[in-house]
Amino acid sequence: MRILGIDPGLQRTGYGVLDVAAPGAPPKLVEAGVIRTRREDGLADRLVEIRDGLAAVLQEFRPDTVAVESLYAHYKHPRTAILMGHARGVIFLAAAQAGASVTSYNATMIKKSLTGSGHAGKTQMQRAIQVAFNLPAPPEPADVADALAVALCHAHHAVRVGQAP
Amino acid sequence: MRILGIDPGLQRTGYGVLDVAAPGAPPKLVEAGVIRTRREDGLADRLVEIRDGLAAVLQEFRPDTVAVESLYAHYKHPRTAILMGHARGVIFLAAAQAGASVTSYNATMIKKSLTGSGHAGKTQMQRAIQVAFNLPAPPEPADVADALAVALCHAHHAVRVGQAP
Repeated sequence: MRILGIDPGLQRTGYGVLDVAAPGAPPKLVEAGVIRTRREDGLADRLVEIRDGLAAVLQEFRPDTVAVESLYAHYKHPRTAILMGHARGVIFLAAAQAGASVTSYNATMIKKSLTGSGHAGKTQMQRAIQVAFNLPAPPEPADVADALAVALCHAHHAVRVGQAP
Repeated sequence: MRILGIDPGLQRTGYGVLDVAAPGAPPKLVEAGVIRTRREDGLADRLVEIRDGLAAVLQEFRPDTVAVESLYAHYKHPRTAILMGHARGVIFLAAAQAGASVTSYNATMIKKSLTGSGHAGKTQMQRAIQVAFNLPAPPEPADVADALAVALCHAHHAVRVGQAP
């Protein structure tokens, strides 16, 4: 089973691709990166850039499932959250157009899945990602770590419910 | 000049197509309608429905410009606003992919452009649309009237700045 985790953002959309060979086997990191857009471009152009970048990732890695953090409504900055919604909409669309299913996980579930605690902090989460993939340092930027975290959460969850490989 | 006005929504996306033949000429109503999605479908599927519905409208009517109400952050229901952002993102993407420019107008400007008052109520706006196009009744559902309102605002604005026809 191949999983594409995504951390949506208008400015930076992080992504990470994992393979789960068999139930219980450690997920293997295939690829991770970030799609960046330019602030000086208009909203429509930035959404096209996100869409095209993601379509290229979907075409190259052909994931079975796309995992994304759930929408939640308690944002400090509503405008930023609504703009993030634009990017997230384009991501859901691109995934569906590529024939991948989309699964959402809420932040608490992602944190608990990786660290055992639903209240883990940012540093603790980055360390968990570093350890899970035996990396020399936590992934940068943080959007990449967040994308890998939701992908790992899906890997754990899918194994638990017997969907993997 | 052909203008496509859109009122984005996950459940109902209203649209209206206008032609402006010459500066100062009254805009002509070409087509209006609504793209509906089913609540029971997943978010990704609903965004595909909005995208496909809008792509069909864009292909049939080939507008020069797509006019949409500006994003604003003072929503009573943040979750609804973020979901609307998903639909709006897909709409901006579809417009850009079809080669149409996208212009945003804030609610006050739209109201002022149609009624002379930036504080016009919903009924007053619907009446203004009815009068502008000599319709027997205000357009239903309200999403259609809202789409025609932003299209008309663009028509007035484009005439004023000399972009029409």
